[in-house]
Amino acid sequence: MKALVLNCTLKPSPQESNTEALVNIVIKELEKLGVKTTLIRIADRNVMTGTKSASQGDGDGWPAILEELLSSNILILASPTWVGTLSSIAMRVLERINGLYSAFDEHGRPVTYNKVAGFVVTGEEDGARHVVTEMAGALMDVGFTIAPQCYTYWNNGPGPGKAYLKSDFRKEWSSETGKLAAANVVAIAKALKHTPMPPMK
Amino acid sequence: MKALVLNCTLKPSPQESNTEALVNIVIKELEKLGVKTTLIRIADRNVMTGTKSASQGDGDGWPAILEELLSSNILILASPTWVGTLSSIAMRVLERINGLYSAFDEHGRPVTYNKVAGFVVTGEEDGARHVVTEMAGALMDVGFTIAPQCYTYWNNGPGPGKAYLKSDFRKEWSSETGKLAAANVVAIAKALKHTPMPPMK
Amino acid sequence: MKALVLNCTLKPSPQESNTEALVNIVIKELEKLGVKTTLIRIADRNVMTGTKSASQGDGDGWPAILEELLSSNILILASPTWVGTLSSIAMRVLERINGLYSAFDEHGRPVTYNKVAGFVVTGEEDGARHVVTEMAGALMDVGFTIAPQCYTYWNNGPGPGKAYLKSDFRKEWSSETGKLAAANVVAIAKALKHTPMPPMK
Amino acid sequence: MKALVLNCTLKPSPQESNTEALVNIVIKELEKLGVKTTLIRIADRNVMTGTKSASQGDGDGWPAILEELLSSNILILASPTWVGTLSSIAMRVLERINGLYSAFDEHGRPVTYNKVAGFVVTGEEDGARHVVTEMAGALMDVGFTIAPQCYTYWNNGPGPGKAYLKSDFRKEWSSETGKLAAANVVAIAKALKHTPMPPMK
Repeated sequence: MKALVLNCTLKPSPQESNTEALVNIVIKELEKLGVKTTLIRIADRNVMTGTKSASQGDGDGWPAILEELLSSNILILASPTWVGTLSSIAMRVLERINGLYSAFDEHGRPVTYNKVAGFVVTGEEDGARHVVTEMAGALMDVGFTIAPQCYTYWNNGPGPGKAYLKSDFRKEWSSETGKLAAANVVAIAKALKHTPMPPMK
Repeated sequence: MKALVLNCTLKPSPQESNTEALVNIVIKELEKLGVKTTLIRIADRNVMTGTKSASQGDGDGWPAILEELLSSNILILASPTWVGTLSSIAMRVLERINGLYSAFDEHGRPVTYNKVAGFVVTGEEDGARHVVTEMAGALMDVGFTIAPQCYTYWNNGPGPGKAYLKSDFRKEWSSETGKLAAANVVAIAKALKHTPMPPMK
Repeated sequence: MKALVLNCTLKPSPQESNTEALVNIVIKELEKLGVKTTLIRIADRNVMTGTKSASQGDGDGWPAILEELLSSNILILASPTWVGTLSSIAMRVLERINGLYSAFDEHGRPVTYNKVAGFVVTGEEDGARHVVTEMAGALMDVGFTIAPQCYTYWNNGPGPGKAYLKSDFRKEWSSETGKLAAANVVAIAKALKHTPMPPMK
Repeated sequence: MKALVLNCTLKPSPQESNTEALVNIVIKELEKLGVKTTLIRIADRNVMTGTKSASQGDGDGWPAILEELLSSNILILASPTWVGTLSSIAMRVLERINGLYSAFDEHGRPVTYNKVAGFVVTGEEDGARHVVTEMAGALMDVGFTIAPQCYTYWNNGPGPGKAYLKSDFRKEWSSETGKLAAANVVAIAKALKHTPMPPMK
């Protein structure tokens, strides 16, 4: 079983990403559950803006990521919280994934069917659950199955507060919730492996 | 396999419900797929306001609905669109379902695990996809699995327009999409029947 | 200048409302700024479900509240956070306010023009900014002006945490932000008093 | 009086932008009302990703746009609808505007105070009102005043349909609503010109 984790922080490496720090706990749990996991920080790749999954031009970083996605059973989408919602980079990823809308497998099913999504969100302020909801709605629409209780988040309101890496506040809640999320996406991915969505032609 | 369909129109019977008209197409498909389906119009029951799943007082209509929900594999939540979002009755239902947050089965799993959700939305104006996203996010959070492409909707913008029952515009899209949604929630429900979420204690 | 404050907690009096506790700080500031303020807890009135602003039936509590609203310059909508979004009671209020869509004054303007909105949200978990955004979008749509930085909130995540009245965490932030919100809705209400929206016929 | 209109289509010039076609109706009305209007298509400028309003690096197109914004009374944010929500480019703009959070004028007021926002949204499917709500919530948070009924949109659901430029369906509704939105943002901008937000120090 394979998982792809896309960190949609606005900060390219080697800058420290709070989102990545929480993501790493989820990845560790996925690997403990036997899932081979690949982590990509979108800001490090030249993912072009567009609504196609195919290359949008020379040097477009998306097609290589798409290849990983298509060979994975699980997608973990991770985003910081900005202005109360998901990052523009997470939106850019959703727009490119949305380009799969008309891509079908040899059984006539959308290529996203039988794939499961989960989420990780951090922020210096309130908004994480809205971010999760927006990402879940978008991925369900294009054909992902959304596992039960498949997310974790961290922020510490009210108002602008510390960053995840600068605080110790209730981080154990976020870690435990992240482990549960990992277990839940794996459980649904296994169920879909044993009983895939039926052929559509 | 059993499905519970909750119509969250603001109108009690015998008033005509546009949402119910579209819901009926989904129900017909569910039954064709061998699912025993129960339809309840929330406005006809005295579902009290509150955040517990247990009775909130004399005459509370929720506990009887909850019993149906707990014995179902599939929940179809249907809502009209008001002020761009879900109806207050759909919110009331989500608040009562949220009361299940601390209810576990004999294997230590939330009682909502292994249940699948789908959605039907109508409106005289834009907003359906937001309504679906809000309902999906809320049900995933309390433990439902959200099937891929598990919704249909009908509205006919821009601006305030005709009601579903008064129009013929692209209703075949809504019907076909509703049938696909029915097939998808059934596929996920079967996958979870064959491979349930693992025991948690 | 007059303000109406609608507390959309799910709890009727005399139960303690966390939302009301934070609301009271905003009310105190409004009165300090010379605004006569009326506070109504919706759960104490029999506000019927419906989409008309006119009475929906015998004993409907809405028309009396509407009268207050129509004579006010400012509306403060206050809601708890449930399942990551606004309460079903806040939604019910928005549905009734939405019934004003076709109510115009003697100058042909929607009766909501020249009225200003602000918001107060509490919760035991993340979601407040989404609640504010949803309420702002709905009230703007029906004709209210949304003042800049016109809200305050309190919650203390991540994950389900303490209630406002049971915690001391960063309450000063919520108080100061609430005072700023009060000043801002008053500033916009004054601007609209001096320079009202132009007649539309 | 000055207005800045930011078209957040994903398509750079000279590609045809549906959003721009509807935007042009609003611009025409703004100019008829005596407002000097500047239109910028973000995809034509190299607006870098980041959370600062200051330059994020060599060739960053944002500072020049920011200068226009700071000298304008009105901001019209225009976005297409993708995956049911605003474009990643609109989000990128909101992230850069959010960088103004700590920028104050000589009277201690946020530099965004006394500025008014309005919105234009197009799409091939449902979602416009959610897009408007998200943009309104974000701009209010950073200090813009949101005018009443300050948006127009066009889409023609249900399901993926024609583009604005390829359809004649109810375009007069979108035009008339856009003219009203233009009048409303101008009315609020005038009110704020006559009675600005009070000095804060």
